[in-house]
Amino acid sequence: MAMSLGVLGPAGTHSEAAAAYLKRQTGEDYKLVLFADIFDCLQAVENGEVDSALVPVENSLEGAINITLDTLARSEGLTVWRELIWPVHNQLLARRRGEIKRIYSHAQPISQCRDFLLQHYPQAELIKVASTARAAEIVAEAPADSGSAAIATARAGELLGLVPIATEIQDSAANCTRFFQVGRQALSFLPKEKLLVICQIDGQKAGALFEVLKEFAQRGINMTRIESRPARTELGAYIFFFDLEYSDSPQLEEALSAVEKKSIWLRNLGTFPVLTVN
Amino acid sequence: MAMSLGVLGPAGTHSEAAAAYLKRQTGEDYKLVLFADIFDCLQAVENGEVDSALVPVENSLEGAINITLDTLARSEGLTVWRELIWPVHNQLLARRRGEIKRIYSHAQPISQCRDFLLQHYPQAELIKVASTARAAEIVAEAPADSGSAAIATARAGELLGLVPIATEIQDSAANCTRFFQVGRQALSFLPKEKLLVICQIDGQKAGALFEVLKEFAQRGINMTRIESRPARTELGAYIFFFDLEYSDSPQLEEALSAVEKKSIWLRNLGTFPVLTVN
Repeated sequence: MAMSLGVLGPAGTHSEAAAAYLKRQTGEDYKLVLFADIFDCLQAVENGEVDSALVPVENSLEGAINITLDTLARSEGLTVWRELIWPVHNQLLARRRGEIKRIYSHAQPISQCRDFLLQHYPQAELIKVASTARAAEIVAEAPADSGSAAIATARAGELLGLVPIATEIQDSAANCTRFFQVGRQALSFLPKEKLLVICQIDGQKAGALFEVLKEFAQRGINMTRIESRPARTELGAYIFFFDLEYSDSPQLEEALSAVEKKSIWLRNLGTFPVLTVN
Repeated sequence: MAMSLGVLGPAGTHSEAAAAYLKRQTGEDYKLVLFADIFDCLQAVENGEVDSALVPVENSLEGAINITLDTLARSEGLTVWRELIWPVHNQLLARRRGEIKRIYSHAQPISQCRDFLLQHYPQAELIKVASTARAAEIVAEAPADSGSAAIATARAGELLGLVPIATEIQDSAANCTRFFQVGRQALSFLPKEKLLVICQIDGQKAGALFEVLKEFAQRGINMTRIESRPARTELGAYIFFFDLEYSDSPQLEEALSAVEKKSIWLRNLGTFPVLTVN
């Protein structure tokens, strides 16, 4: 029986394109379930409505996806199965070539294409909508001479019969998005390359973060990413997200229990492999 | 002659209300200049169009204001004059009481009032606009029976003659926004309480961040905040923002020069006092 995989819809989003890739790459038979936002998508995993979800966690130009981090920090029993590094290719799509008066997209691609837009369409109105796929739908539904265009994926253009007016319009060739595939119980058969640890540190203590990082550093455990989000209790109280390189040594367990002792709370979201797109 | 102070407009935004407070509190005679976005506002300081600007840098519920951090990191010759901790009070405003079908606001207050909205207006359409003040304007311009409401400041409601349907609707009483007053050359006559240091660390080196924090920690310099943003060159390359407590000791200078040696680049945006609202 196919496992269900939640993803930010509608069809043609970067998330849906990444999910289609994951399916091909792993050979696992996923039935995609589309959600209107990332929060609903992760909640559906927690509630058991879907078996896992593929959600964006960070973009190389625009930074952390806050709703993903905040939901992971507050959820119970979620675990990271895989990380996927997805190269982002944006296109400017329209029903036909001609004057462009307004450009629809999600807030992130609008930021990611800032230089292109300033140079080529400084007069166009920029309209932020819920997803790139929704932007493409709006353009497909508008009259052909409406002067509307969308920044979206090639896949959305193909699904809706739109014309690519310009391709590779992102400001940097280094535009990648990291996704996490998130499930409930751990999949022990997958390779262990990284792990995600979330904890709240008492920010009132001077040097508290330093003391935590020391536990990793002095045991030779490499941290590939640190991110913080507000604890939402008071200004100056933070939750930290540590991406660590996995090592099959007692040092890692020692470090985690030492950090846990120095934290208000700590949760280990598990070990996982990293997939990159060839 | 009055100094000019740039701020995110229109009249009635949280930024404009905070600027009015700054003016009263410091007794300095500022002429407010309103800008459509934070990027333009900081650029105007850099270009000399305004003498300084008051911009939000962090909210206690929603986290960093990315555009402020990214613009500060990439600007030349900007310096922080003051930090202002501003308590955020949101109101739900309408032309009159009655059914509410859609609610306009900026993305941040919509997130900050998430629980209130889910509980009282689960069916209302939530529409994100450029600022809370713009949201209030839209409601003021709509017919009285349109079912439109705005999440905005009490000040915006008073300016536009709107009725407060509910007050203190933010999810947490701990809802504060930190602002920076940013100018060009340093104001040496102000008290020195904190400083802001921005640097890019070579993320490929294991333990690089730990080595940087060690320079502060072993000299007893307290870090009140760490934030990171993408360097925009590749996935995994970050710019770090360190808020440090100022101390009038050679230790601080030593730490900064040690950190500079370990960084790709480092900029010190200066020392400044912290104002809190009574």
